Amino acid sequence: MEKNKSKVIIVGSMAFDNIKTHKSSVKNVLGGSASYSSIAASFFAKPKVIAVVGSDFTKKHIKPFHDRGVDTSGIEVRDGKTFTWAAEYDKDFKNATTISTDLNVFADFAPALKPADTQPEALFLANISPKLQLDVLKQVKKPRLIACDTMNLWIKNNKAQLLKLLKSIDIVFVNEAESRQLTGIYNLIKAGKAILKMGPKVVVIKLGPNGALLLTKDAMFQVPPFLIEEPVDTTGAGDSFGGGFVGYLASVKNWNNIKHIKKALAYGTVLASFAIESFSIKKLAQVKPQDIKKRFEIYSKSCRF
Amino acid sequence: MEKNKSKVIIVGSMAFDNIKTHKSSVKNVLGGSASYSSIAASFFAKPKVIAVVGSDFTKKHIKPFHDRGVDTSGIEVRDGKTFTWAAEYDKDFKNATTISTDLNVFADFAPALKPADTQPEALFLANISPKLQLDVLKQVKKPRLIACDTMNLWIKNNKAQLLKLLKSIDIVFVNEAESRQLTGIYNLIKAGKAILKMGPKVVVIKLGPNGALLLTKDAMFQVPPFLIEEPVDTTGAGDSFGGGFVGYLASVKNWNNIKHIKKALAYGTVLASFAIESFSIKKLAQVKPQDIKKRFEIYSKSCRF
Repeated sequence: MEKNKSKVIIVGSMAFDNIKTHKSSVKNVLGGSASYSSIAASFFAKPKVIAVVGSDFTKKHIKPFHDRGVDTSGIEVRDGKTFTWAAEYDKDFKNATTISTDLNVFADFAPALKPADTQPEALFLANISPKLQLDVLKQVKKPRLIACDTMNLWIKNNKAQLLKLLKSIDIVFVNEAESRQLTGIYNLIKAGKAILKMGPKVVVIKLGPNGALLLTKDAMFQVPPFLIEEPVDTTGAGDSFGGGFVGYLASVKNWNNIKHIKKALAYGTVLASFAIESFSIKKLAQVKPQDIKKRFEIYSKSCRF
Repeated sequence: MEKNKSKVIIVGSMAFDNIKTHKSSVKNVLGGSASYSSIAASFFAKPKVIAVVGSDFTKKHIKPFHDRGVDTSGIEVRDGKTFTWAAEYDKDFKNATTISTDLNVFADFAPALKPADTQPEALFLANISPKLQLDVLKQVKKPRLIACDTMNLWIKNNKAQLLKLLKSIDIVFVNEAESRQLTGIYNLIKAGKAILKMGPKVVVIKLGPNGALLLTKDAMFQVPPFLIEEPVDTTGAGDSFGGGFVGYLASVKNWNNIKHIKKALAYGTVLASFAIESFSIKKLAQVKPQDIKKRFEIYSKSCRF
């Protein structure tokens, strides 16, 4: 897995998280959509992160990215504080309640790609505002693969921009609630088909503890989760899933072959299973390629009849 | 699939259902746990139904069972009316609200096996009171396989009897809510493990639109659903799943081989997918073995990475 060095540009947030679960809590741990997704993608490709952090973001925070071969030269350091998110999960991680969101330096994030970064193999527009996602999209020259994530806030407040973005996207990741909010359709299969009509070639509806549902023009199927008996913190599971998914597809020729798309689903699932076994990126950053291979095999075998 | 004629005794309810969904409604259609599960099991084994009906249960109602080779000689016809259940589903079948339950002749059901029926290959105690399930269990001589289903009502009102039953059972089917109610544990994997400790060798937690979670002492995995875009009526899905599951296992040697258990999960899933495509047993009874084979192959292929 480590050999392939396809370049993947990942644009998203880097944050400090304050997380409370029913068992414990942590303060100021590394989080953000770009953090989780770039670490996950690094097992398959060469991610370059485009993000912004404050002056409180130190060498200690950058080290895990370097250890995983993530290019951090696109992370802009500004005077001020790093984006901070505080949330509390209810029992068994059914819901996260946001306690506070301090955008800090993230408020003025204006991602600008260097000329050398405008022709990546793949572009992953992780969860940031559709306006910024569109800005980045304008700066790149036809990557083979463009994927995006989004969230309820943007569907509510920036729907027109999101719909514009979806017209130029290959793969979109949404969760159940987002797929319903975006389409007004409760039935997930119908919602997925409606999103396909908005432009993307592949729609992935993340089902949390129930795996994921994938739809293309020609195929649809649901995959189960990789079972983790006791998640520590589900923050970043979706980002890790997306990063693993996109990273894997960036590493193959003809990503739109359904066999590759299925493998991407499986790898995304496996990466997410590691992400939820610790707070922050701790477990994810320590994973070895052989750990991923092993879980992929267990997962793949468990799904074989 | 049709060749194997292992005898499976299925004890459960036969009913007339009045069902209202968000799209349409039906009155006095054939339903009941024994009806769905015996038709589903008939594709793999030779089911004999032990049940009770009223004098309003006519030849027309018996015909689909005969057409599928189900032995109906154990169905007792009593003066009075057949058990009737009326329910209304909310949008997308998330919840069924019982409008009325008229036990009628079912109130005095006292299943008595004929001597010739006391040595079946398999026994499926479909959803009836644990008291009756225990009564039947006493009448059989060591079937190779004993499975049971249950429901919230019995967990609430007859828990001691249910726990006694579980000590003598190989396979138990519960849904998410039942697994939590039975154990007091929200986490499904932990709930499943707690149920394993109550006696069964295999615990199957039915997840409705999200497939099923299976646990044994040595293995656990979740399988996705067979996707049906627009279910007509989900009544009997769990019974058809259980009937297909048990029927398939009755047809193989060494049912407790994990490979067979996984195939049983897949066949149960496929049978349930047919059950929800019509009201009553209509679609299920019309299915041909090749239809099952085809769906099994689609399902199996979609799960292969």
